[in-house]
Amino acid sequence: MKFKVREVNIRSSDPYITLSKADCVELGVKENDRVSITGERTTIAMVAYSDDIVEQGTAIIQSQIMKKTGLGKDGTVDIVYAHKPDSVRYVRKKMDGGKLTKEEIEAIVRDILENRMASIEISAWLTALHINGMDIAEIADFTMAMAKTGDIVKFSRSPVFDFHSLGGVPGNKITPIVISIVAAAGLMIPKTSSRAISSACGTSDFVETFCDVELSASKLMSISEEVGGVFAWGGSMNLAPVDDLVIKIEHPLGINPRAQMLASIMSKKVAMGSTHLLVDIPVGSEAKVATLEEGKVYARDLMDLGDRIGMHVECAITYADQPIGIAIGPNLEARECIAILEGEKHPSSVIEKACECAGMILEMAGIPNGFDKAKEILDSGEAYKKFMEIVVAQNGRPDLKSSDLQPGKYSYDLKAPNSGYVHAIHNKEVVFIAKTAGAPSDKGAGLMVMKKKGQRVEAGDVLMTIYAENEAKLKRAQEAAISNNPFEIEGMLLRRVTEVRTL
Amino acid sequence: MKFKVREVNIRSSDPYITLSKADCVELGVKENDRVSITGERTTIAMVAYSDDIVEQGTAIIQSQIMKKTGLGKDGTVDIVYAHKPDSVRYVRKKMDGGKLTKEEIEAIVRDILENRMASIEISAWLTALHINGMDIAEIADFTMAMAKTGDIVKFSRSPVFDFHSLGGVPGNKITPIVISIVAAAGLMIPKTSSRAISSACGTSDFVETFCDVELSASKLMSISEEVGGVFAWGGSMNLAPVDDLVIKIEHPLGINPRAQMLASIMSKKVAMGSTHLLVDIPVGSEAKVATLEEGKVYARDLMDLGDRIGMHVECAITYADQPIGIAIGPNLEARECIAILEGEKHPSSVIEKACECAGMILEMAGIPNGFDKAKEILDSGEAYKKFMEIVVAQNGRPDLKSSDLQPGKYSYDLKAPNSGYVHAIHNKEVVFIAKTAGAPSDKGAGLMVMKKKGQRVEAGDVLMTIYAENEAKLKRAQEAAISNNPFEIEGMLLRRVTEVRTL
Repeated sequence: MKFKVREVNIRSSDPYITLSKADCVELGVKENDRVSITGERTTIAMVAYSDDIVEQGTAIIQSQIMKKTGLGKDGTVDIVYAHKPDSVRYVRKKMDGGKLTKEEIEAIVRDILENRMASIEISAWLTALHINGMDIAEIADFTMAMAKTGDIVKFSRSPVFDFHSLGGVPGNKITPIVISIVAAAGLMIPKTSSRAISSACGTSDFVETFCDVELSASKLMSISEEVGGVFAWGGSMNLAPVDDLVIKIEHPLGINPRAQMLASIMSKKVAMGSTHLLVDIPVGSEAKVATLEEGKVYARDLMDLGDRIGMHVECAITYADQPIGIAIGPNLEARECIAILEGEKHPSSVIEKACECAGMILEMAGIPNGFDKAKEILDSGEAYKKFMEIVVAQNGRPDLKSSDLQPGKYSYDLKAPNSGYVHAIHNKEVVFIAKTAGAPSDKGAGLMVMKKKGQRVEAGDVLMTIYAENEAKLKRAQEAAISNNPFEIEGMLLRRVTEVRTL
Repeated sequence: MKFKVREVNIRSSDPYITLSKADCVELGVKENDRVSITGERTTIAMVAYSDDIVEQGTAIIQSQIMKKTGLGKDGTVDIVYAHKPDSVRYVRKKMDGGKLTKEEIEAIVRDILENRMASIEISAWLTALHINGMDIAEIADFTMAMAKTGDIVKFSRSPVFDFHSLGGVPGNKITPIVISIVAAAGLMIPKTSSRAISSACGTSDFVETFCDVELSASKLMSISEEVGGVFAWGGSMNLAPVDDLVIKIEHPLGINPRAQMLASIMSKKVAMGSTHLLVDIPVGSEAKVATLEEGKVYARDLMDLGDRIGMHVECAITYADQPIGIAIGPNLEARECIAILEGEKHPSSVIEKACECAGMILEMAGIPNGFDKAKEILDSGEAYKKFMEIVVAQNGRPDLKSSDLQPGKYSYDLKAPNSGYVHAIHNKEVVFIAKTAGAPSDKGAGLMVMKKKGQRVEAGDVLMTIYAENEAKLKRAQEAAISNNPFEIEGMLLRRVTEVRTL
């Protein structure tokens, strides 16, 4: 059927057109059905209907759709019912507990990428994945299908090392240290990182305080091959781009199905040409992975998956029951990270974790006593030298000092209400407070954790200092800290038990 | 944050506003997050972002949203991040296989009704229901929660009988016959029916060819109480309205979770004040229920559910491996239905099914030998008299004759390509052809099935006649019939087996 077009400029998750109810009946379409729209070219959109805003014979069409179709010669568009793509049947198969073939998985991934699947269908897909899961063979197919949706990098050097953290622990600023150590040992490790999704500060969020992270693909490749390491933002590469479309649905649903998570991580490594990968699996009651047992399951899956897609994978299951180091927030984490490279001996938790991870990568390359070797490279200043080479290659200042990076000028000290020992520091509250203070978009926002687990505190001691770039945000963060205090402080004696029946 | 408003008039499934990326970062919201918008009043919408169509400080907002909020005194609106409603956590609980409490189910139903749940969340909910299901206690809570979202009818007479078919079989025009027999026996049966969702013709689609079906609630009640029966369209009552919002998501996903289906049917019966209900469960390889065993499971669930919500429920599991009767399509089905009430003795499948169902309802009322009594009421003309009383009460012509209802003037005879026996008539193809011919919106469109299962046919015999109101649709239906012939015709000998190994 031919329709006159009224164009409107608005976005929504799915491309929508609005038709009168009578025209919908005539076309045989219901709300949320697909139609194919043909002007000069053809595209697909979803239907909404409303008699009170559109008359018969007219279609209200979003500009984003009209850009794809244009008008036909007579100034109208032709609209007809369009069938659901086959991928919707495969989603249904997963809902019904079926195992999907490589071709079916590829069809789903392609249809998500090319906007042929509607948001509600992607939501059904992720829910089915969350509930029914995938076996490792399916996840391997899923990984390769996702990798193929974007560019695949080919380096002239081999092996290609990589490092990834599952995340979920605040203050985890080890990546530039690990990369600098590994590259200083002569290996190539072209690391791409992400920005914060739900955390207070992703690696790219703090690295960009001292050098560029949005590198072109060719720049990333040349720095990697010449300097050995790079700290780039993954988003500047076209790596497994279908992932971004999926995150838009996962995030509001609050789910991250294991199959999707594994395929998402590994597809980007495949796209980056990685041959050897170390995965950091932080384990803690408030991390993504709660227990050691669960961490082992992830490790086995990642290594099995590596076997199937031809990548050597090892895992480091790490302690994540409190923040790593002291600093949280972009400038603060950058300062702590660079200070360690400059020779600072604290905080030891950051140094130890960085050297353990770097050491495992060195051992993958056949270098014995990895941890000791990594420590030696850090202590000797070789890692710092390599770090500065990378910074300069990424347009950072050649005279960069850790002290260049300063927190926001508004600060608040959260003090201990009573004496005792720090029994727990809740990561989720720490992240919430740092975000309320403005992290990661306000670079000076964040906090310094002054007391860690097990430490003795006296009433009135400073537990943490919150920083913000303006007074309003500091005030909000201060309120958040008071009502959601992340610190649990108690005496050594938690409860007196004098009779069994009082237990 | 304060925003200037640019209003646009377009619909989409969810209410959307468009902001610049910088404003999203400032507000701490991501795509598909919720924001609360306050002008004179407050409402919730979802966020999309686009730098190229909106500048910082401006929000593009759909008119449907602006109607709910209005502008603030200074001509702007205030937009802040809004948390997900609790119901999203309960959806997650169902995803994780949990059993929901009455309060959790009520929260989900209320948030769907009041547009607080986004489409992708409703999609996740339905997918979780499809996979993880609900037990009967949950379904009972779900039923009552859905019923409470709309009006609850209270009749002055009791008991209140009702009749419902799960559907999925074409040509099932028995409802007006059943209602007329039951009402002629002095019982009250205020039946509401639906229009076609995926079928070629719902009860309301053919009843409206001879009388009004969109009755006000008060008219429906007065006709029911005075005449005993009514053939109303359920949509004209405000019965469990949340169902309509769910169907918009179920339909494009192609799923109808059992818990949702049962609660949807039963909530409308609760809302109509039904005390005694007969459910027709058509069983056939292409019906909604494929096997007798599956039919028994539905019957047990419906009866258990009835027990829990205080309704007497019985079920008729019926044969549905081919169309019921001969006619498919609004005018054609109306003609066949009225002719039977006028005294016509064919097709016997329609008469038998109608009398079996009516008989079971009579027996629920304590009338013995239900089938015989129903047949007697039909044969004596009492059912016809009652039928005409109802028709006239619903503004139909007092001189209505079955012959008033005629098919479209364009027709095509599909002929048997070979001789043999009709081994199968595929319902799905029959429905597809009738819809292609224009049913149910073109009242004269449809088809007449001239040969039924088991009948002998000679090559060239007419298998079915397709009718349409215009030539183009007839041509399309004709092509559909040729490429998707619903008839399987073979000899009595299907395969010669002379040696076991050839099997």
